[in-house]
Amino acid sequence: MTDELYMAHALKLAKRGCFTTTPNPNVGCVIVLHGNIVGEGWHQKAGGNHAEIHALHAAGDKARGSTVYVTLEPCSHHGLTPPCCQALIDAGVDRVVVAAQDPNPKVSGKGFIFLKQAGIKVSHGLMMKESKEINRGFFKRMVTGFPWVQLKFGISLDGCIAMNNGQSKWITSHHSRLDVQRYRAQSSAILSTSNTILADNPFLTVRWPQLKKDIEFIPDQKLLRQPIRVIMDRQNQVTPKHKIINQPGETWLIRQSHDNQCWPNNVVQMILPVNKQKINLSEMLLLLGKNQINNILVEAGAKFAGALIQDNMIDELIIYIAPKILGDSSIRFCKLPNLIDLNSTPKFSFTDICKIGSDIRMTLIPEEQKSI
Amino acid sequence: MTDELYMAHALKLAKRGCFTTTPNPNVGCVIVLHGNIVGEGWHQKAGGNHAEIHALHAAGDKARGSTVYVTLEPCSHHGLTPPCCQALIDAGVDRVVVAAQDPNPKVSGKGFIFLKQAGIKVSHGLMMKESKEINRGFFKRMVTGFPWVQLKFGISLDGCIAMNNGQSKWITSHHSRLDVQRYRAQSSAILSTSNTILADNPFLTVRWPQLKKDIEFIPDQKLLRQPIRVIMDRQNQVTPKHKIINQPGETWLIRQSHDNQCWPNNVVQMILPVNKQKINLSEMLLLLGKNQINNILVEAGAKFAGALIQDNMIDELIIYIAPKILGDSSIRFCKLPNLIDLNSTPKFSFTDICKIGSDIRMTLIPEEQKSI
Repeated sequence: MTDELYMAHALKLAKRGCFTTTPNPNVGCVIVLHGNIVGEGWHQKAGGNHAEIHALHAAGDKARGSTVYVTLEPCSHHGLTPPCCQALIDAGVDRVVVAAQDPNPKVSGKGFIFLKQAGIKVSHGLMMKESKEINRGFFKRMVTGFPWVQLKFGISLDGCIAMNNGQSKWITSHHSRLDVQRYRAQSSAILSTSNTILADNPFLTVRWPQLKKDIEFIPDQKLLRQPIRVIMDRQNQVTPKHKIINQPGETWLIRQSHDNQCWPNNVVQMILPVNKQKINLSEMLLLLGKNQINNILVEAGAKFAGALIQDNMIDELIIYIAPKILGDSSIRFCKLPNLIDLNSTPKFSFTDICKIGSDIRMTLIPEEQKSI
Repeated sequence: MTDELYMAHALKLAKRGCFTTTPNPNVGCVIVLHGNIVGEGWHQKAGGNHAEIHALHAAGDKARGSTVYVTLEPCSHHGLTPPCCQALIDAGVDRVVVAAQDPNPKVSGKGFIFLKQAGIKVSHGLMMKESKEINRGFFKRMVTGFPWVQLKFGISLDGCIAMNNGQSKWITSHHSRLDVQRYRAQSSAILSTSNTILADNPFLTVRWPQLKKDIEFIPDQKLLRQPIRVIMDRQNQVTPKHKIINQPGETWLIRQSHDNQCWPNNVVQMILPVNKQKINLSEMLLLLGKNQINNILVEAGAKFAGALIQDNMIDELIIYIAPKILGDSSIRFCKLPNLIDLNSTPKFSFTDICKIGSDIRMTLIPEEQKSI
C-alpha cells in the first residue's frame, strides 16, 4: 500500500468523530510497520485520548520503527491531555506523515519541530485538502475566529417555505427531514430565532435513534451529545416554557439584556449590544466562535436568512426542494428587501446535487468563496 | 447480436428524426441477414420515405430472407407514400420485429395482419416502451387528441423569473439557454402569450447554427424547420410588426375574432370561442392536436403557466435553476391564486436532474401521471 492509501484510511477513521469531537477536530491515525497496519485510532471526544494515543495503545511494542499516518499535526503542548509528540517519541516511531498542519496560529508547526528535534522523519501535506475539508469549521474558527455557517431550507419548486397562512408541515419528505437530522448531528450548534421558536415551538434536537445506522460504530452511546441551541432573542421573547429549554444539551439565548426568569442550569443568556435595533451578525458569530462553536446549522425564517446572506455570513446553503408548487402568495425562503438589480443578487455555485427520497438536495457555496 | 441489440440500434436511428419528422413519428429500421446488418434507415421528413424504405434501398437484394427490425408498425395504407408492408413483402423479407404498434386507432394492427397474410413472421413488443418514449407526443395525440405539453422555466433558487421591475436578462446561464434551443428544436410548436410578446418581443425561433453539433448527421440542412409559433392572443394585441411575425416558419394566433391587418402568408389567425373572458385551455390544445401538433414547448409567464398547471394540462416541467437569490419582492414563475391548503398544491415527481453549465436542470412529471 502507498502512503496515500494509509492516509485515506486515517481520514476514514477521522470522520468517525464527526458527531462527537466538537469543539475538537476530527483526527484519525494509522500506524504501519513493515507494510502491516499495527495500530489505528480516532479522536472521539474532547478531553479523551487523541487519535495518536489510541493508535499507539493498539500498536504496543510494534510502534517501534513504524510509520505513523495522522490527519492533523500532533500536538506538542499540554492541553486537556499530554502532548502526542512526546508519546510518539517515547514509542520510538521512525517516521510521521501528516495531512494538515494545525491551524491554531499559537501551535501551528510546533509539533513538526518537536518531532524533528527528536530525530523523527516528518512530512506533511499529503491529502491536506481532505483533512481540512472534514474539519472546515475547526479550521475556519482557528484562522478567522468565525464558525462555519450552513443555512438549511426545505422549499417548494417556487422557493416557498410555507403557505400564506403559515402552514408548512410538511413541504419536504420524511427522507429529507431525516437527512436534516444528520446535518444537525454533525453541527456544534443549531442557530435559530425567537420568531421561529414562537411560531413553531420546535425541539431543535437530534433524534439519535433515527440515525441508528449512522452511529453504530460509536463505541459508547454516552459520547452522543445535543448540539447547542443558539437562539437570537433580542426582545427576550423565549420563555422557560418553550420546548427547546427542557431538552438535553444547552440553550444559549442571544439577548441585549438578562431577564430574571427562573432558567434551568443548561440555559445561558449571552449579552450582545444592539446597534440600530439590530444585533450585529458578525459580532454574534464571533461570540459563538469565541465560545468554541466550529459549525453552525441555521434553521430559521426568511428574514434572518436574508440578513445572513446579505451580510455574507453564509459558508454553505443546503436546500431541499420538494416537487410541489405553492403559488405566488406563499412565503418565500429569503427576504432581500433592498435588492433592485439582477446583477447584484447574491450568487452561489452548486457543489452537490442529489435525490433524497422524493425531493432533491442541493448544496451551494457563495460564488466568491474559493476555499476555506 | 441479439434481437434487442438490433432494435436498440434501430431506436438510435429513429431518434435522428427528432428535429425533422413532425407531424410524423420518429422511426428507425435495421435489416439483418445471416447476422450482418445489410441495410438501415430512418424517417427524415413527412412526405419523404419511411424508415423501412430507406433500409430496403440500402439492403437491395440482401433483403431477401432477412429479418427486419423496425421501431413502429409498418404502414399498410397509402398515405403520403405507398404502404411499407407491400414493399417488405415485395422484397421477400422473412421476419419483421416491431417495437410498438401504430397508435392510430384507424390503422393500428393492420400492418401486422397485412404482413402475416403474406406469410411473413411478425412479432412486436420488443423495446416498446422506448419506442413510445421517443414518440410520446405522437402517441398522445393519436390516442387522446391532445399534444404532449412541456412547460419550461429559467428561475432563481427562490423560484423567480424576473426582478420586481421586470428585469429578467439573464437569470440562467448561456449553457441553459443553449439547452432550451435543443428543446425548441424538438418541438412541433412553441406556445406563448401576447403578454410575453408585448413584454419581451422575442423571436421564439430555433437558432440552428448554435446546435451545429446536434444536427451534423442530418443529410440535408433543408430538412430543418422552425417550430410553429402559437400565441394566445385573445385581445388581438399582436401586430404584424412584432418580431415573431417576420421569422421563417409559421405563426398561429389564437384569437376570438379575426382582425383586418395585413398579415404575411405564414401567419394564421385561429378562432376559439371565449367563455367567461377566458379561452378554454383544453379546447385550445385539442385544436392544436387536430392541426397535427405532437409536442408543445410552453414559454410564457407566471399567469399562463399557473392556468395550465391548475387545469392539469402539463405533461412535463423543465426547470433550469440558476444559483442566485432574487428576493421576496421578485416575480415568481407560477401564479396559483386560489391555493390555500398545502395538501392541495400541484405535486410532481422528479424524473431527471443534471448540471447545465453553472445551473441545474430538473425535469418533472405530474404526480398522478403514470405513463403515456
